[in-house]
Amino acid sequence: MRLLHLGDVLGQSGRKAALEALPMLRDRLSVDIAVVNVENAAHGFGVTAKICKEFYDAGADVLTTGNHVWDQREIIAYIDEDEKLLRPWNFPDGTPGNGDYVFKTKSGKKVCVINMMGRLFMDPLSCPFQGADKLFNKHKLGKNVDAVIVDFHAETTSEKMAFGHHCDGRASLVLGTHTHVPTADAQILPNGTGYQTDVGMCGDFDSVIGMKKENSVRKFITKMPSGRFEPAEGPATVCGVYVETDDKTGLAKRIEAVRIGGRLKGSWPSA
Amino acid sequence: MRLLHLGDVLGQSGRKAALEALPMLRDRLSVDIAVVNVENAAHGFGVTAKICKEFYDAGADVLTTGNHVWDQREIIAYIDEDEKLLRPWNFPDGTPGNGDYVFKTKSGKKVCVINMMGRLFMDPLSCPFQGADKLFNKHKLGKNVDAVIVDFHAETTSEKMAFGHHCDGRASLVLGTHTHVPTADAQILPNGTGYQTDVGMCGDFDSVIGMKKENSVRKFITKMPSGRFEPAEGPATVCGVYVETDDKTGLAKRIEAVRIGGRLKGSWPSA
Amino acid sequence: MRLLHLGDVLGQSGRKAALEALPMLRDRLSVDIAVVNVENAAHGFGVTAKICKEFYDAGADVLTTGNHVWDQREIIAYIDEDEKLLRPWNFPDGTPGNGDYVFKTKSGKKVCVINMMGRLFMDPLSCPFQGADKLFNKHKLGKNVDAVIVDFHAETTSEKMAFGHHCDGRASLVLGTHTHVPTADAQILPNGTGYQTDVGMCGDFDSVIGMKKENSVRKFITKMPSGRFEPAEGPATVCGVYVETDDKTGLAKRIEAVRIGGRLKGSWPSA
Amino acid sequence: MRLLHLGDVLGQSGRKAALEALPMLRDRLSVDIAVVNVENAAHGFGVTAKICKEFYDAGADVLTTGNHVWDQREIIAYIDEDEKLLRPWNFPDGTPGNGDYVFKTKSGKKVCVINMMGRLFMDPLSCPFQGADKLFNKHKLGKNVDAVIVDFHAETTSEKMAFGHHCDGRASLVLGTHTHVPTADAQILPNGTGYQTDVGMCGDFDSVIGMKKENSVRKFITKMPSGRFEPAEGPATVCGVYVETDDKTGLAKRIEAVRIGGRLKGSWPSA
Ligand SMILES: [Fe+2]
Ligand SMILES: [Fe+2]
Ligand SMILES: [Fe+2]
Ligand SMILES: [Fe+2]
Ligand SMILES: [Fe+2]
Ligand SMILES: [Fe+2]
Ligand SMILES: [Fe+2]
Ligand SMILES: [Fe+2]
Repeated sequence: MRLLHLGDVLGQSGRKAALEALPMLRDRLSVDIAVVNVENAAHGFGVTAKICKEFYDAGADVLTTGNHVWDQREIIAYIDEDEKLLRPWNFPDGTPGNGDYVFKTKSGKKVCVINMMGRLFMDPLSCPFQGADKLFNKHKLGKNVDAVIVDFHAETTSEKMAFGHHCDGRASLVLGTHTHVPTADAQILPNGTGYQTDVGMCGDFDSVIGMKKENSVRKFITKMPSGRFEPAEGPATVCGVYVETDDKTGLAKRIEAVRIGGRLKGSWPSA
Repeated sequence: MRLLHLGDVLGQSGRKAALEALPMLRDRLSVDIAVVNVENAAHGFGVTAKICKEFYDAGADVLTTGNHVWDQREIIAYIDEDEKLLRPWNFPDGTPGNGDYVFKTKSGKKVCVINMMGRLFMDPLSCPFQGADKLFNKHKLGKNVDAVIVDFHAETTSEKMAFGHHCDGRASLVLGTHTHVPTADAQILPNGTGYQTDVGMCGDFDSVIGMKKENSVRKFITKMPSGRFEPAEGPATVCGVYVETDDKTGLAKRIEAVRIGGRLKGSWPSA
Repeated sequence: MRLLHLGDVLGQSGRKAALEALPMLRDRLSVDIAVVNVENAAHGFGVTAKICKEFYDAGADVLTTGNHVWDQREIIAYIDEDEKLLRPWNFPDGTPGNGDYVFKTKSGKKVCVINMMGRLFMDPLSCPFQGADKLFNKHKLGKNVDAVIVDFHAETTSEKMAFGHHCDGRASLVLGTHTHVPTADAQILPNGTGYQTDVGMCGDFDSVIGMKKENSVRKFITKMPSGRFEPAEGPATVCGVYVETDDKTGLAKRIEAVRIGGRLKGSWPSA
Repeated sequence: MRLLHLGDVLGQSGRKAALEALPMLRDRLSVDIAVVNVENAAHGFGVTAKICKEFYDAGADVLTTGNHVWDQREIIAYIDEDEKLLRPWNFPDGTPGNGDYVFKTKSGKKVCVINMMGRLFMDPLSCPFQGADKLFNKHKLGKNVDAVIVDFHAETTSEKMAFGHHCDGRASLVLGTHTHVPTADAQILPNGTGYQTDVGMCGDFDSVIGMKKENSVRKFITKMPSGRFEPAEGPATVCGVYVETDDKTGLAKRIEAVRIGGRLKGSWPSA
């Protein structure tokens, strides 16, 4: 199978680029499933039902989020209506929405998508490592599901790498989100899981993590309240990761970074 | 000019790979200056005088560090003897060692190397942004120095990107260290400064930031004291960044990631 | 019933003072149960089996701990043998030891003691608020237990006050530990739970939270590694809290701070 | 001399109680100077020019603040007009307002008031310890000033105790603010400085640090966005500290906690 995951879509610039790229990527890479992290799609903060629809229409199959999931309050009421829009699984019991979803591809394959959040320098949700154990008990790679994608939304490289190894052999792909900067460490871990510490954002890289740079720099220096942070408006780079899995085991055979447009050096899974 | 900077050397595996690569890289890329971050060179924790000598002998011109600089206590007495071994500039007044150094290349060019530390999720040193202003007043790119390299040792992508923009036009290269994972966002910022959020480590990537993975994973799960963290011993990837500057302005004309060996996809500044 | 809880015993000075005070306090206040937090009893870091025995011999009925519980490695093997030595309940499943215990007083009353840890600026254990809900379902005040004491080991006043209100009406006493400074806010919350944000340590208050002050001050200023932190050796103040409960409901009728000896102004539940 | 300092005034309930208590306290205790921390006076967040005037009219001589100082944006423009309204001294150079002020009492004595902020679990301002050294060089107790009061706005007991010892002998009084809970550790440090880890708030203690408890508890449990935090509206306890200094040295001869009204046990410097 062929899996595609795009990182945090940031504001209008990121939406425009990601919505344009999705149909092209689906087509050129013949992907079986496309997942997009949309936690910053609505002007940098959260996502709306309208934006979700735009992404589904453009070819996204499942949407993931992170710590910004509730920034647009309307999503709290909406999320239970849309089981393809995930929030981190390890929120407290009783939180609206769900954190795992089994998507059926056109060819009838089952792909489990999991959204999980890290805790180091972040909110103390329930343990993502123990949560993963429970979920892998339910979604068994190569048995009841054909592929497993885990979007691990976390701050530090240490927690992300540790989590990757913890999942190794039980997921097709573990990719990090949240830092908005793509890492250059795509690899297949020893037991067969494709891994990249952070997939990077779909946003303008002449910025501070996608937001206009002047305000952010000023705040670091002056420690005074800044005006509202606004998304940078230059052309976005679409950042993603592409994985090919073994049909039998569901493990990764190949992993490649995807980077298209904007200021960053391009990357493309050449044939 | 041609500048090379290698990221955090991690333990024996990282030392071996970096010491081997340095002469080859100097030769093939005809670099005018090679800088290496050695904060994890001594079994993962700090650096010793003996290791510094090994790096100088292998072709390193200036060494930088970070939060782990004092892990080997002997370095506290040593650092004042060796002005090419830097510690973050923004430690309190009176701290042993220095955080900026002007290196003279064989061809007589002056390259200022600055080591600075971020504060978000790190120790509250003095402001790196205001510190940079002072240092750029002293070391004027294209005037009294021919190139300026800033090793910004910091945790978050937001502080690193903000710091890069703050230095833009005043440094030849701002590169992040500390997270041990190379980022894929090498770019020349609008005012001419080469930038990469993190250069990555010289270490084994089948690990948790260079340390053996089992111990680290167990600690994230059990919250119990772990045994001593030890460096992973597999073959290291040498991670660095290469920049070509304009002879007149000292600004970057080209920036390329360098990755050699180990598990990561290679990267090489092709001609 | 009459309940007594002493705060974090710190090193030799704290042990000496607390061990001397315990028999006197039991006697004078006719307490039905005495609980002592011993997480810093062993030279400031953790506790040993030998020290536990000393406290039981002096009249402690149950011992609580906190983030320092595992500092003395021998306690990991010991804790499962001693069900009266508690560690925070919300450690991950599978952690040695237990976090709640029902003590039977000489007069046949049952007192449930719970040890819980906060998460703000601390390690991300499982949710203490949801944990409390589970425990109060098992230990029903005024029904299957005659009193409930909760030692909430936490950093911030906000999490502690929120936790106190969350438990209000379901515990006889919620007292904070960990900051080592007694607070002056003992009160009975609206639904009947006795509450004090921090009970304070049993230690020398000419110190930095019980440790020698010179080393600590130097570290705040220089940001250099300090020598090993050592307990201050001056005379300790014994800090505790005393509660009288209603025999029927188990709720608090009276709460008084206890402070004896050392540098702090004394406090004593006068008749 | 007789010094009075009241802690963080919280919202309408805190303002009402503090404004009523001030004239009475000035009168009964014959204080030479009254300082009030007003960082939460405006509905819990910051302070306005109008509120400052109310406090001056009620008998406050100098006002201090903390991390919430800029919450009401109007104060940014106002603060330079009012040199008696302090913000933490260790904000970056160029920040509006001032952090130290020498007040002249009616009897012609000079009292230096300093507002400083801690850094542990707070914003990384410049070093408060080194800042204190500079300020004590300028304001010499028993030489060019008759008393020195330092409001140290900080989170942790360790940084506060360390800071107290660092100032010991150079200030008449070092008191902590920010946690909103009064501590019971008022003492005169070995070199003569009066010290209390936290003076506590002027606010309703049936709350979470002065704010309505329901919202706060819910947020700790659900990790969902809460509605706007609002001050609790019950009767406030006025929390302060009272110090008598030696006329010659300016050092403390006596220190007493002040607590009046509301839910907490009262405290009053009896004759
Ligand atoms: Fe994001
Ligand atoms: Fe995020
Ligand atoms: Fe490092
Ligand atoms: Fe580091
Ligand atoms: Fe403690
Ligand atoms: Fe503790
Ligand atoms: Fe406050
Ligand atoms: Fe505050």
